[in-house]
Amino acid sequence: MAIPSKYVRENMELFAPFMKPEQVIVNVAKGLERGTLLRLSQVIRQCIPQCAVCTLVGPSHAEEVGRGIPTACVVSGDNMSTAKMIQSEFISHTFRIYTNSDEIGMEIGAALKNVIALAAGANDGLGYGDNTKAALMTRGLAEIARLGVKMGGNPLTFNGLSGMGDLIVTCTSMHSRNRRAGILLGQGKSLSEALQEVHMVVEGVNTAKAAYDLSKKYNVAMPITETINKVLFEGSSVHDAVLELMSRDGKEEIYY
Amino acid sequence: MAIPSKYVRENMELFAPFMKPEQVIVNVAKGLERGTLLRLSQVIRQCIPQCAVCTLVGPSHAEEVGRGIPTACVVSGDNMSTAKMIQSEFISHTFRIYTNSDEIGMEIGAALKNVIALAAGANDGLGYGDNTKAALMTRGLAEIARLGVKMGGNPLTFNGLSGMGDLIVTCTSMHSRNRRAGILLGQGKSLSEALQEVHMVVEGVNTAKAAYDLSKKYNVAMPITETINKVLFEGSSVHDAVLELMSRDGKEEIYY
Repeated sequence: MAIPSKYVRENMELFAPFMKPEQVIVNVAKGLERGTLLRLSQVIRQCIPQCAVCTLVGPSHAEEVGRGIPTACVVSGDNMSTAKMIQSEFISHTFRIYTNSDEIGMEIGAALKNVIALAAGANDGLGYGDNTKAALMTRGLAEIARLGVKMGGNPLTFNGLSGMGDLIVTCTSMHSRNRRAGILLGQGKSLSEALQEVHMVVEGVNTAKAAYDLSKKYNVAMPITETINKVLFEGSSVHDAVLELMSRDGKEEIYY
Repeated sequence: MAIPSKYVRENMELFAPFMKPEQVIVNVAKGLERGTLLRLSQVIRQCIPQCAVCTLVGPSHAEEVGRGIPTACVVSGDNMSTAKMIQSEFISHTFRIYTNSDEIGMEIGAALKNVIALAAGANDGLGYGDNTKAALMTRGLAEIARLGVKMGGNPLTFNGLSGMGDLIVTCTSMHSRNRRAGILLGQGKSLSEALQEVHMVVEGVNTAKAAYDLSKKYNVAMPITETINKVLFEGSSVHDAVLELMSRDGKEEIYY
């Protein structure tokens, strides 16, 4: 099931009467529900409580999986025996699957990486270099991890395929719509112009708002997310935003 | 001081008589000493014990720093007051510096990322996609972190600029000689042909051997490092090596 996050609840409510308790739902959507700020596996469980739900995420552009290009993902679930069942069902020579019991960390990483991809795309659109982008991605993952840990996630999950791995592929691949939207913003287009040109759902825009709301709810400093929100929804210039991020006081690298 | 790691000791011995105790040495070299397997800051301290030594690393291709492109690095040292002094001396609007007290983790990440860059380059040379490369980089950092933690590093350091950040820039930028050497290996060239074509020091080749020795010394599983060693020094084919990595048994994602 890879449908835009805003349609997950209504679709799950439609599916619910037809789902049998022995069926396992594998959630591959990446986002947060607007308003409730719930992870999508939580939304699915609310709608279809009779079924076990697993979440399968990681750096896996469908364009490449379909061509048999070697890909590695990670699966979590209500309990690890279900996750291990999904692992053994789907694993192959070209599709490698790890298990991880930290569903919270996995889903927060998979969802919020799209926000950082907007920033990484903007970096590319502005013509900044590899150093700046690597720093943005690293500090972006650091703020995602700070939030995820406050929400109950394991800090090491963010080092993994659903965190760092998915972030890398989303920030560097032309398959990523979030990155493409960011490039257009960096080139000076407005949000509505960028969305019209990408012409597909750009999850990072909705997730940026939800991530900002979560940062306030959990009282976590998320300077890149905050800056992206200013660019998306308050008309800040992308160029000034990068300068603002670079001119904060010197900090220690690790803090939660 | 950014000289190849194999010449650090002899150069430091030459410098030693001229260094005054109030001088601070900022180490920006990335590698391990062959044979002793020492980090380079350890080598410098052995040769010049009268001086404080800091280590400054992170995603910072000199080609971009010199052009004023925004860059972020991290500094550590014998004590944090020296590191903070270096932070405040070097920080600017285009060069952002964090501090981290974990010198071991920083130097292990900065050195061993060159080994993973050889693998990432080979991935590109083979024509594999973004998914495979993101997985290689993520699992590569996981094995670097496993080793670094056994050596006394903080697992969170590997999430930072010296770990993930430097790994990203080295594995994705054409400025990286290690990646360029890996691309040539992926295209079927021999190690000596690749080194001749890159025509500059490729630290990852020496570091691969040292990393393998460290993995045995500390009894840490490092499948990517082991595979790269087979390709570099035992004539294994790059194509078979990737298949071998992908067909290991299903594992849990996080283990130390």
